[in-house]
Amino acid sequence: MLKLQDKCGVFGVYLDPTSSDGAGNAATLSYYGLCSLQHRGQEAAGIAVVDSTAHSPITVKKGLGLVSEVFNKDALSSMHGNIAIAHTRYATAGARTIENAQPILNKFKKGTIAICHNGQLVNYAPLQSMLEETGATFTSNSDTEVILKMIAREYTLNSSNIEQSVMAAIKAISGSYALCIATEDTLIGARDPFGIRPLVLGKVNGGFVLASESCALDAVGASVVRDISPGEIVIINQNGVRSSSIISKQQPSLKQTCIFEYVYFARPDSVIDNISVQKARQAMGAVLARENPINADIVMGVPDSGLGAALGYSQQSGVPYSMGIIKNKYIGRTFIAPTQTERENLVYVKLNAVQSELQGKSIIVIDDSIVRGTTSKRLVQLLRRAGAKEVHFLVSSPPVKFPCHLGIDTPTKGELISSNHAIAEICQEIGSDSLAFITLGGMIEALQSCGTNIIDGFCKGCFSGTYPV
Amino acid sequence: MLKLQDKCGVFGVYLDPTSSDGAGNAATLSYYGLCSLQHRGQEAAGIAVVDSTAHSPITVKKGLGLVSEVFNKDALSSMHGNIAIAHTRYATAGARTIENAQPILNKFKKGTIAICHNGQLVNYAPLQSMLEETGATFTSNSDTEVILKMIAREYTLNSSNIEQSVMAAIKAISGSYALCIATEDTLIGARDPFGIRPLVLGKVNGGFVLASESCALDAVGASVVRDISPGEIVIINQNGVRSSSIISKQQPSLKQTCIFEYVYFARPDSVIDNISVQKARQAMGAVLARENPINADIVMGVPDSGLGAALGYSQQSGVPYSMGIIKNKYIGRTFIAPTQTERENLVYVKLNAVQSELQGKSIIVIDDSIVRGTTSKRLVQLLRRAGAKEVHFLVSSPPVKFPCHLGIDTPTKGELISSNHAIAEICQEIGSDSLAFITLGGMIEALQSCGTNIIDGFCKGCFSGTYPV
Amino acid sequence: MLKLQDKCGVFGVYLDPTSSDGAGNAATLSYYGLCSLQHRGQEAAGIAVVDSTAHSPITVKKGLGLVSEVFNKDALSSMHGNIAIAHTRYATAGARTIENAQPILNKFKKGTIAICHNGQLVNYAPLQSMLEETGATFTSNSDTEVILKMIAREYTLNSSNIEQSVMAAIKAISGSYALCIATEDTLIGARDPFGIRPLVLGKVNGGFVLASESCALDAVGASVVRDISPGEIVIINQNGVRSSSIISKQQPSLKQTCIFEYVYFARPDSVIDNISVQKARQAMGAVLARENPINADIVMGVPDSGLGAALGYSQQSGVPYSMGIIKNKYIGRTFIAPTQTERENLVYVKLNAVQSELQGKSIIVIDDSIVRGTTSKRLVQLLRRAGAKEVHFLVSSPPVKFPCHLGIDTPTKGELISSNHAIAEICQEIGSDSLAFITLGGMIEALQSCGTNIIDGFCKGCFSGTYPV
Amino acid sequence: MLKLQDKCGVFGVYLDPTSSDGAGNAATLSYYGLCSLQHRGQEAAGIAVVDSTAHSPITVKKGLGLVSEVFNKDALSSMHGNIAIAHTRYATAGARTIENAQPILNKFKKGTIAICHNGQLVNYAPLQSMLEETGATFTSNSDTEVILKMIAREYTLNSSNIEQSVMAAIKAISGSYALCIATEDTLIGARDPFGIRPLVLGKVNGGFVLASESCALDAVGASVVRDISPGEIVIINQNGVRSSSIISKQQPSLKQTCIFEYVYFARPDSVIDNISVQKARQAMGAVLARENPINADIVMGVPDSGLGAALGYSQQSGVPYSMGIIKNKYIGRTFIAPTQTERENLVYVKLNAVQSELQGKSIIVIDDSIVRGTTSKRLVQLLRRAGAKEVHFLVSSPPVKFPCHLGIDTPTKGELISSNHAIAEICQEIGSDSLAFITLGGMIEALQSCGTNIIDGFCKGCFSGTYPV
Repeated sequence: MLKLQDKCGVFGVYLDPTSSDGAGNAATLSYYGLCSLQHRGQEAAGIAVVDSTAHSPITVKKGLGLVSEVFNKDALSSMHGNIAIAHTRYATAGARTIENAQPILNKFKKGTIAICHNGQLVNYAPLQSMLEETGATFTSNSDTEVILKMIAREYTLNSSNIEQSVMAAIKAISGSYALCIATEDTLIGARDPFGIRPLVLGKVNGGFVLASESCALDAVGASVVRDISPGEIVIINQNGVRSSSIISKQQPSLKQTCIFEYVYFARPDSVIDNISVQKARQAMGAVLARENPINADIVMGVPDSGLGAALGYSQQSGVPYSMGIIKNKYIGRTFIAPTQTERENLVYVKLNAVQSELQGKSIIVIDDSIVRGTTSKRLVQLLRRAGAKEVHFLVSSPPVKFPCHLGIDTPTKGELISSNHAIAEICQEIGSDSLAFITLGGMIEALQSCGTNIIDGFCKGCFSGTYPV
Repeated sequence: MLKLQDKCGVFGVYLDPTSSDGAGNAATLSYYGLCSLQHRGQEAAGIAVVDSTAHSPITVKKGLGLVSEVFNKDALSSMHGNIAIAHTRYATAGARTIENAQPILNKFKKGTIAICHNGQLVNYAPLQSMLEETGATFTSNSDTEVILKMIAREYTLNSSNIEQSVMAAIKAISGSYALCIATEDTLIGARDPFGIRPLVLGKVNGGFVLASESCALDAVGASVVRDISPGEIVIINQNGVRSSSIISKQQPSLKQTCIFEYVYFARPDSVIDNISVQKARQAMGAVLARENPINADIVMGVPDSGLGAALGYSQQSGVPYSMGIIKNKYIGRTFIAPTQTERENLVYVKLNAVQSELQGKSIIVIDDSIVRGTTSKRLVQLLRRAGAKEVHFLVSSPPVKFPCHLGIDTPTKGELISSNHAIAEICQEIGSDSLAFITLGGMIEALQSCGTNIIDGFCKGCFSGTYPV
Repeated sequence: MLKLQDKCGVFGVYLDPTSSDGAGNAATLSYYGLCSLQHRGQEAAGIAVVDSTAHSPITVKKGLGLVSEVFNKDALSSMHGNIAIAHTRYATAGARTIENAQPILNKFKKGTIAICHNGQLVNYAPLQSMLEETGATFTSNSDTEVILKMIAREYTLNSSNIEQSVMAAIKAISGSYALCIATEDTLIGARDPFGIRPLVLGKVNGGFVLASESCALDAVGASVVRDISPGEIVIINQNGVRSSSIISKQQPSLKQTCIFEYVYFARPDSVIDNISVQKARQAMGAVLARENPINADIVMGVPDSGLGAALGYSQQSGVPYSMGIIKNKYIGRTFIAPTQTERENLVYVKLNAVQSELQGKSIIVIDDSIVRGTTSKRLVQLLRRAGAKEVHFLVSSPPVKFPCHLGIDTPTKGELISSNHAIAEICQEIGSDSLAFITLGGMIEALQSCGTNIIDGFCKGCFSGTYPV
Repeated sequence: MLKLQDKCGVFGVYLDPTSSDGAGNAATLSYYGLCSLQHRGQEAAGIAVVDSTAHSPITVKKGLGLVSEVFNKDALSSMHGNIAIAHTRYATAGARTIENAQPILNKFKKGTIAICHNGQLVNYAPLQSMLEETGATFTSNSDTEVILKMIAREYTLNSSNIEQSVMAAIKAISGSYALCIATEDTLIGARDPFGIRPLVLGKVNGGFVLASESCALDAVGASVVRDISPGEIVIINQNGVRSSSIISKQQPSLKQTCIFEYVYFARPDSVIDNISVQKARQAMGAVLARENPINADIVMGVPDSGLGAALGYSQQSGVPYSMGIIKNKYIGRTFIAPTQTERENLVYVKLNAVQSELQGKSIIVIDDSIVRGTTSKRLVQLLRRAGAKEVHFLVSSPPVKFPCHLGIDTPTKGELISSNHAIAEICQEIGSDSLAFITLGGMIEALQSCGTNIIDGFCKGCFSGTYPV
């Protein structure tokens, strides 16, 4: 079970201000959209909103905690407007401050502008320095503030419109990004040239919606229009949806979607770049079954992200599928984790095993990944305590050997168990009877099986050490 | 999916004060135990603790919210003691006040006493009146306070020890109850003569644990000793565990465990009265398959409580099991529910369907129950929106026709759709292609298949209108 | 400046339910009344309210903190009713819990009853034991709960009406008390036979008001009717105001009002038992001037309670009055007090001196009392730092040598500096050039000068060790 | 009583990092300093701190509420450093947001910089536009952010040191300001060329302190060094205190201290530009007595700012001084103000009258100012209710006829009662028997009497409409 964390979910809405119903509800739609992206970050949430007919600045409300903790009915009903962008954030320990919460809102010469970002810039430092050379000041530690100031500066100094300014800023930045940007009359979405982080466009009554995942479109009753293309910028306003790209049409596709979206991050009911996440997980399980046929009594997944692979394994192999592991869904931010002593006394609160399913049986358990190995070790203990005779551990992603620099909060290379241990050593460490990972080829094959014309355009940096950027 | 709500989870710990390690940790164990019983109530939580060697009164900390919201690290570490009882509460709207949170703590002549209760008394009013006749005063609306005052009065006026007092009080009360009671040196557990609400005894290093469900024993590393018998009272203190009963040994078993624990309330990893909840749900699904063979492409369950039945149906019938419905696990107490208009605009935040699984398919969907029918109707809409060709709705419990008076918060008879509609009418109302419920006989058969010597000792009042009390 | 603290302020309202305007505003009037009694306790506040025409139980809202922290607009506007009682509480450190906040509300045989208490019972323990003998249980550590249960028990077992029950309960209790009691249709006030704690009756549009001090009557636009007499019980309901007494009319007055109300506790704009507090303080200052003529440049008081005496001294002696000491009015419950080191570095936040008034002058400073002596010592330092040439310290009460058992939170005898030091020693300890206290006789003379027919009916226990009870 | 509000209090500390004791306590000193400046703003508070030996960025903690609400012990003890600046803010209704709280902290090319500001810029808009022309973005509505970005820009582009940068920025801004600025190794103070807002330098063990008022120096045990001169910039770091000025030495003094500091804003124990505030108020009262001799029984002031003038009147005229009006010191931010109906029912919570002082008497009451007239009208009602025979209303400042643009939150001209009513009309409106204001000449005379060589260097814009800027 991956402890690595994707950094964010983004959402955006543009409603036609002249449409009869609901034009002021952009913030409410954002609330429901954010609730559906909550799995992408639970540390902070925020919504920025503006009424494009009111000639007033954008306003923002954000706070630490879950979406439903940050916004109450009063707050939401006071946020009137037809354009909104919204963000749910995963923050690393040191930066759990309101200053780094998003959307980030700034006033500049041409009005107000707000931005939400999922991803990570690799040329953040030189851009910040360049801006600082001209006297710019910063209030957060976030690379997102750099993007915002790049746009504002470009719009102020060089461009006659926001579209060109965003384009110019985006050409300057490098890294992974899915962006939602709001001006006082326009919603803009953008995705990096490799499409590393996902972004999808939807159609809702009287307007359009952008979201990190299609499950958020489903939540607000929007239909999927299409994924934003790598390098694409969409401008949504009174004139409808216009699209530009920072990549020339002649250029071959650079697409390298983060493969971990399918393995772990995304909700199974999302479709990312035309691949159903649920289908992808089942396909990975089927490949695992072909690559690692095991004569076991049952197969089970580690909830929630391992369940699909386990079902796929069962369907391919005929080994009966079992719901042998139960996850406590109330373990949130404020849960007091057991101490080391308590853990050794076999205190297991987050996961539990169903003894009636396991007692005396040879089992296959499938998790989405192994990072440090500690969680896997605890899991094997748990299954043995519940009476499992044999525990065969399968992993629906290849060994994670390299840290990610494109938006996922990974440990250092030294902490990645696969980086410095052979599979047999890891198997011994976690205490399973056997251990196998899906091959990288098998994983690609699984993804390609999920639709027609799916090309191998995935970022596999954490397995191979080779990154698109 | 049942909207009815069981009222509470209870937990109790007694640790030998002379044991070398962890004797002061009763509150910490209770915290983890409560976290595992959180599904039984999210409105309020509380822990009462006492050090039996300190000759000091019991203290209590309780509050509104989740266990992890009520207790932080500081609060928990300040609660030192070897005896604790704990409670997590589901409260009806009107009574969402701290006064009704549990444990309830009172000082009386012989010291302090605290109590936690899952269940509902039917002779609450005459007992309260009787106590009031003697001048007693009450601070809560809870029937639990009546039990506490009965015990205190008995101990003060008639009995020489707490055991006899609890026995006398329990002989006077009628209804459903699983109780954890703490005095300054003893932990007491009690279960009503019909065993309507569950209570299980566990063994932990240096002591004993009581809990509503065995999953809480697993959480704290306790092994199951046995279910508390109907009518049994266990007294746990320095002298070990002693057991009494308010039922004579000659009397035949009155056992009538609430059947809805298996269908909906309990966590699948719990074992209640020797029946594994997960196994029971799969068995109900298998019976459903035999009673209602349907030629469909896939079968899926409504998360979380319908999943087991769907898997059982699949195993019995060969219809492939699918994970076609996804539940948002972040929808808690503070979530702002969509308005009626938003609902009609197809805003679905709590549940979503996996389009790739449903598109163009004939599907069977299994839910644990139908109460008002509104949730089922929304679900069928959701599945059709995702492209389902046919929706066959199966329910793993018989029609709920009668309200519960024994601890479940049901709507009135008029609101129970099965109480005044034929199945065909309900099918039309919810918009499914077909609808069938498990038979009561089939349900009993399913439970009996889950072990040896399982007799038909279940409360089926909500289906039949016949109650044990 | 006295660190001793009176325990509480009480307030009660009865509005005629048939009066045209404002009959539902009892809670709002209570809010403003409590705000005016805030100086009597800042630890907790509460209001109980009931609509006597609605046949519904009394409800209560209480919390830790200032009145304005416990009640917001929403809370207040939801508290509809024509009868209310209210309380503001000073709590000793150990008991800062919501359980001990008042009003205390209980349900008993005849309905609901709520109570507020300023004072302290001396026979609390035997009464609680007596109640416990009959099986009674307690939820707080407060002696007030004993009074409530005495009334409920009496009403249930022996009396046909609430008036008799309150009378019987009050005859059983001993100590100091000013009580406001609410039943579902009646407001009751009571004052102990010695009248130790104050209670005053007022008339407001459409009803009556009870309060610890007349300043709270002024706040809500009520006119003073009269002080409740020692031993008197007033019953206010649809039939108007009726009065009884637990003292026979033949009996000579037992009146012994706490003398510290005039010196320190009460607000200067209050009139207690026909003596204006402001006038009393000025009169004490005048007596001090006659008893201790000093040839100084200016005289100043320690704010706020020493100001009146300083003005009286000035008027009597001709020594010019000065505002030489300023008190920071924002130092509340949550202020972080300076550490010992910081104090020694001359950090003075609560009080400051006006250098332009003090520089090079011989000054008289008047405080209301000396308890431990530490505050006086700091004050003398402060005045000298500001340039005072001579500091003559006068105290407008005699030396406090004995702890109070009747409602004031005093330190032990060992900590009372006057209990074990001669005046010369205290003078040396606090570092003043001279020190004098008013004589007890002078103090009584001052009070007698404040009206016609003022008899020496004051509790002087803390000076003499002789208490009324 | 002036409802106008000065905007802020500022505080700064520099402690020698090599000094033996307390070098890390800059934040704690700031806390006590801020507590003493709390009267200058109760809406928000903040402290920025840095350790000049640690080569780490400045950190800031700020929040809405009183100083003692924003900072608890944990927060304070975690703020280690030898340099700190601090701010307490009065915010107008619309801007009660955390974004506008101070200190404002920004990162720029040369590190981090934080700023606190009391006052108001008049050329805010063109400066912001100028910055925006270069692409600058803003996160608050505050003119203070403009100053910060001016400094950062100057330091980045043109200057080799912070001193020159601050100097350049300050030369560009126009308006009123007292500033405390912290860099990672230096504390800087600055006061506008007219010295409109006060700023004083103090010496504390091991370092220096800056504060809006000398009472904050007293609070932390600092001795007054001197007032910062109009146009002066002080740079405090390892090299000691250095001073520059934006005014040439040849230039005559521009000093125009805000006269309302003496009348209303400042605490009476403060000394501003060598004039004791308490002395100034008494002197104004004496002038009032000479200008308006009235044959009355007593004279009293409206607390707190009218008390000094009343004492001065008494001393000059011989009319006895009385403490006839009492102010409730617990009315804070969260107090629920009475409704109009409640006000008409004579609900008076903030102020009360002492009946024993007023009954049947002819009185003089002195307030510091009349703005809208509504408060004065209520006050006269209050005094008459308490029995005053005649009420003569005197005001210790001239009629306020013009709004302030230099840091005081005044109503518009239309709302200023003196702007469009003759004195006789105002007298009739507020219901007093007579009404008189001090003359502007008399006020200046009073201030000049408070020391030697006090020149008429006061901003009198609100009386005359002529402003320094």
